[in-house]
Amino acid sequence: MKILLKIAYDGTNYAGWQRQENAASVQGVLEFALRRLFGEDVPISGASRTDAGVHANGQCATFELAKMPIPLEKLPTVINSQLPSDIAVQSAKTVADDFNARFGAVSKTYVYKIYNAPVRNPLVCRYAAFVPQKLDVAKMQQAANFFVGTFDFAAFCASGSSAKSTVRTVFSCEVAEEIIGEISQNRLISIKISGNAFLYNMVRIIAGTLFYVGCGKFTAADILPIIASKNRAKAGKTMAACGLVLEEVFY
Amino acid sequence: MKILLKIAYDGTNYAGWQRQENAASVQGVLEFALRRLFGEDVPISGASRTDAGVHANGQCATFELAKMPIPLEKLPTVINSQLPSDIAVQSAKTVADDFNARFGAVSKTYVYKIYNAPVRNPLVCRYAAFVPQKLDVAKMQQAANFFVGTFDFAAFCASGSSAKSTVRTVFSCEVAEEIIGEISQNRLISIKISGNAFLYNMVRIIAGTLFYVGCGKFTAADILPIIASKNRAKAGKTMAACGLVLEEVFY
Repeated sequence: MKILLKIAYDGTNYAGWQRQENAASVQGVLEFALRRLFGEDVPISGASRTDAGVHANGQCATFELAKMPIPLEKLPTVINSQLPSDIAVQSAKTVADDFNARFGAVSKTYVYKIYNAPVRNPLVCRYAAFVPQKLDVAKMQQAANFFVGTFDFAAFCASGSSAKSTVRTVFSCEVAEEIIGEISQNRLISIKISGNAFLYNMVRIIAGTLFYVGCGKFTAADILPIIASKNRAKAGKTMAACGLVLEEVFY
Repeated sequence: MKILLKIAYDGTNYAGWQRQENAASVQGVLEFALRRLFGEDVPISGASRTDAGVHANGQCATFELAKMPIPLEKLPTVINSQLPSDIAVQSAKTVADDFNARFGAVSKTYVYKIYNAPVRNPLVCRYAAFVPQKLDVAKMQQAANFFVGTFDFAAFCASGSSAKSTVRTVFSCEVAEEIIGEISQNRLISIKISGNAFLYNMVRIIAGTLFYVGCGKFTAADILPIIASKNRAKAGKTMAACGLVLEEVFY
């Protein structure tokens, strides 16, 4: 039988999702826990290969087992008892044998957070990039709309990507802000983006491009020409990994 | 001149606020940074000796310096450049020479957070205690009111306290809840408590007592008799340090 897990993790201490020879990965730690639990090698297959330091609330991954000795509703808690505090299975369900966690996904949602305040705050900055210069959120909101659609996003793809096509569809891209604490100048800016799939570092480069809009280096009118350029050098910087969360995968 | 700093920290990796011989403390790390910055020993004096693993958004502490070589408005950023990512000064201002960060405080506010959900979530549980059994928040809210007032809180004081009197005044104690994510059963319960001062572990024992109310072990009617007993064994358990944040100190 094939089981689909929904997994949350704090990526701070990991070299990313994907199993690696010489570094701790989320996949590697999960597979180690499953092997201890079931007494056999249980390879898992993830929806998204999140990068080093990137977090997840709703990563999805499947594994197969001839016979499941644990009731499905107890599986998350049982697996979690074998995991470190920074990784936890949120839910488990059975799926069809031909279900593919990666290629079966119709949509993924990521959230990128920026803590925009005069000084950094450790309780916020574990899960947000710190930006001290004041950002114009209204301009960022305006610019975000231009990412929605089907485009060749080559300008928003880090080198080293193995993607055959760089065409992707962004379904929505929204910027919101929230005051943190008593001081109105301390704001958490969230960029929520959904799409059919994302290129290597695409969300972090879109966040970096919106950051450039927020500090006046780009305007909303620059977005479509940057996309059309297909030139990575035209887009904004790649924002820090710590601000990114894989929020949900839809099938 | 005397400087008052407001400090935020993630207490996870520290043995508490207070300087110790053989363990990393927040005070010790701050004093090390100030010594490197000013080239002399600069002892600091904190408002609250938060325990191992307890966090702060608004810890306050003073230090004295004959001559301040750095403009006050730049001081937080300059000190922060010498601090690890889990500690950061939020603001700095001058105070009178007789200002005392600890005994001058008229009120302190703490927030205790409980993540109440079927399975733990690493992105929430760094700053919240995980409780899987469903809590009755309405009953916790009702019970919280009974902590407001001036009482002998001996029943809410851990042994090992050096306090001469165990009488304290609680100004307010409020319980709120917030849905986390898409699933309504995943809730973050916050206990916000303000008082003139708090005994050793007092907030964590009050949180543990409200937790017992939430799971039906105690009722709101039990709170005043527990206070009156002055017996630590009658109150609830001491909740985990990770859920506690020193939110603000008022002078």
